[in-house]
Amino acid sequence: MPFNIAILASGNGTNAQAMIDKIAAGFLDAHIALVICNRPGAGVITRAAKAGLPCLVLDHKAFPDRESYDLRLVEELHKAGAELAVLAGYMRPLSAAFLQTYRGRVINLHPALLPSFPGVHGGSDALAYGVKISGCTVHFVEEKVDSGPVIIQAAVPVIAGESEESLMQRIHKMEHRIYPQAVQWLSQGRLSVEGREVRLAASPTPPPSPDGHWLVWPPLEEGF
Amino acid sequence: MPFNIAILASGNGTNAQAMIDKIAAGFLDAHIALVICNRPGAGVITRAAKAGLPCLVLDHKAFPDRESYDLRLVEELHKAGAELAVLAGYMRPLSAAFLQTYRGRVINLHPALLPSFPGVHGGSDALAYGVKISGCTVHFVEEKVDSGPVIIQAAVPVIAGESEESLMQRIHKMEHRIYPQAVQWLSQGRLSVEGREVRLAASPTPPPSPDGHWLVWPPLEEGF
Repeated sequence: MPFNIAILASGNGTNAQAMIDKIAAGFLDAHIALVICNRPGAGVITRAAKAGLPCLVLDHKAFPDRESYDLRLVEELHKAGAELAVLAGYMRPLSAAFLQTYRGRVINLHPALLPSFPGVHGGSDALAYGVKISGCTVHFVEEKVDSGPVIIQAAVPVIAGESEESLMQRIHKMEHRIYPQAVQWLSQGRLSVEGREVRLAASPTPPPSPDGHWLVWPPLEEGF
Repeated sequence: MPFNIAILASGNGTNAQAMIDKIAAGFLDAHIALVICNRPGAGVITRAAKAGLPCLVLDHKAFPDRESYDLRLVEELHKAGAELAVLAGYMRPLSAAFLQTYRGRVINLHPALLPSFPGVHGGSDALAYGVKISGCTVHFVEEKVDSGPVIIQAAVPVIAGESEESLMQRIHKMEHRIYPQAVQWLSQGRLSVEGREVRLAASPTPPPSPDGHWLVWPPLEEGF
């Protein structure tokens, strides 16, 4: 039995593509049962078509309110047999109507080390603050945006003076690795949630010496 | 001419010790002209004595208000010829009276990746949130606590279920490396601040491939 997932997207679909690629490469044991896109013309629609995946374009503007739209999403996910909803650049908060059914089975990706820089400007907010380390976060979705229990995070350096595009490129590269990894752990049934804490079965302990392994930015020089 | 620094501390003084050790090892080109401690009996007093450093114990309770205490600090730092004030577990916010004189020449260390988890419970707040990556931050001090421009950050993994003591041990190890490194950069005159951005002269660019270099936690498994 494959692990059936649905991808919800609004944009170009690069994270959807990362899932497609990791499945094709045999590392991610999942089947994309459905792609749903709320924006007609978005790039993710072409990507789904190229991969031979069913893609439903459901324009939210055609629905009277968020709840009726979200109930339709739930209906489509049920029909497709989706056990997990993967938000991949899906730019709409999910209502309680959706979460009542899919709570604990919806995950999202955020381009910052939450709880730093929540919201839709994770990259530019990090640059404006002047942090030296930012990153990305995969988390379970709750009603409050960017607040759910954290599954995996990746840290990346921020270069003083760089553009948002340059930083986001570095973050996206890690997103395309940690997001499929998180889905694989869910596919394997290795994640459990206690309160706000997500535990991974058979997780390693960190190496005792951090030399060169954990991230310091700017890098330490000789003797430090 | 040595780079004269003063260390302000309230507690055990492990970060003061890290400075002492890096100077003794010949990596940190600085001279600790004065240690000031606001708590009689604090461990840092013994550490300073053992290292043969002048240590002034100035109990803040003997002063009528924060401003008069801080003006005395400024006076003592001037007398000692301190070009930089290094807060090392100094548990009092600095007033405008201090910052008027030492703005841009006071640095602090925070046991979290700011702006996440400011305040006095950086470790336990990170555990309560359930982040997978935390760390520590060296920053310039401004009136608003834990808000000044960031000089260097280190990321460390957080293990699901671990104690605060266990996490803090991992963070402290990195603190003892990044804090002396930040002082060394200041000693070398290599830091400049533009708005909120701290630039390091002769800073490297990050390696193009993140494999194993930047931090992901829990670690990626084969294929991701």
